[in-house]
Amino acid sequence: MLQRPGTGIFLTFEGIDGSGKSTQARALATALQQDGRDVVLTREPGGSTGAEAIRRLLVEGTADRWSPETEILLFNAARRDHLEKTVLPALSRGAIVISDRFADSTRVYQGAARASLRPLVDQLHDLVIGFEPDMTFVIDMDAKAALSRGLARNSGEDRFEDMGADFQQALRAGFLDLARMAPDRVQVIDGARDMAAISADVLAIARRFIDGRAG
Amino acid sequence: MLQRPGTGIFLTFEGIDGSGKSTQARALATALQQDGRDVVLTREPGGSTGAEAIRRLLVEGTADRWSPETEILLFNAARRDHLEKTVLPALSRGAIVISDRFADSTRVYQGAARASLRPLVDQLHDLVIGFEPDMTFVIDMDAKAALSRGLARNSGEDRFEDMGADFQQALRAGFLDLARMAPDRVQVIDGARDMAAISADVLAIARRFIDGRAG
Repeated sequence: MLQRPGTGIFLTFEGIDGSGKSTQARALATALQQDGRDVVLTREPGGSTGAEAIRRLLVEGTADRWSPETEILLFNAARRDHLEKTVLPALSRGAIVISDRFADSTRVYQGAARASLRPLVDQLHDLVIGFEPDMTFVIDMDAKAALSRGLARNSGEDRFEDMGADFQQALRAGFLDLARMAPDRVQVIDGARDMAAISADVLAIARRFIDGRAG
Repeated sequence: MLQRPGTGIFLTFEGIDGSGKSTQARALATALQQDGRDVVLTREPGGSTGAEAIRRLLVEGTADRWSPETEILLFNAARRDHLEKTVLPALSRGAIVISDRFADSTRVYQGAARASLRPLVDQLHDLVIGFEPDMTFVIDMDAKAALSRGLARNSGEDRFEDMGADFQQALRAGFLDLARMAPDRVQVIDGARDMAAISADVLAIARRFIDGRAG
């Protein structure tokens, strides 16, 4: 388990593929930088040289390339490297770290793939990761609408999107469940509105949280 | 944890880099095939398409590329894929599977890197792997002599060999410790002799074991 250092703030964005969470993570990073803050924008899987190499194994190839168990191990390997090399050093110096996806994605994606895997996900998290973000924004929207946006991107990183609309629908329900279980940490944001309205909501919540921590 | 199927026999070779274990694994596979047996020769990290991709992340690059914790996760991901795709299907049909390295290497390599990691290695093994070979041959030899052989190969897969002679010496001690802890499973073979003498020893022990299991 990792010890969390320093006075930095760790914010994460979660949501199904095509929900717009990456756009919102970027918008929040830009706005907080314009406030004059030290901000590190990063993503999972990836966010460090080693974790980006593991990302390519995870997001490319056919949907059945890995079993859910192997996938969970690879996500934890990437996360551990990301934390060691990128997130913890930034938190140590007091920065605000904004990550596009984190451990909630593993809980929801692998839990949606097979419910019996959730204990394994939790045990691995406790063994090798062991901490949570200060605040998590779930950008929530209809699975079919999100999937059509996601597929339109054609990024070559389509492995999870290729798992289909029912899978994405299970993911959405999984994120909303997590929000109900951890209401202090997880903020659900209505992602069906226009981008500027969503960004304004997120920024207001984030500023209030950061100012509260500083005060 | 995986359930071990069928009536097959699972044999592994272990030892420090340059000990000659890969040569011995190959020689045993050839001899048992000449006996008319169904033999699958494989290796770790690797032994399946996915695990070979993970292998490249593990054996290439600088010695400090990964933390020991990330490395343990990657080895377990590769091992899980190898078992699912190669080892268990072969054992299911009754084959003899011979693997050049398996879980003992993770115990010894990561335990040698930092003793406090051994509980993590054991917990991960119990969570996602959960079984042992029927018999393990440790090809034992002096670390300096083995290292000079290993480095002479210049395979581009030198990450662990680059960790130096003291590291290899600690590995040798680790394999001998495992043999003392599991004397029924682990056979220590003197690897300082000529290759034919070692092969003859290994083949005699393997044949006796296989005949005992069939009888």
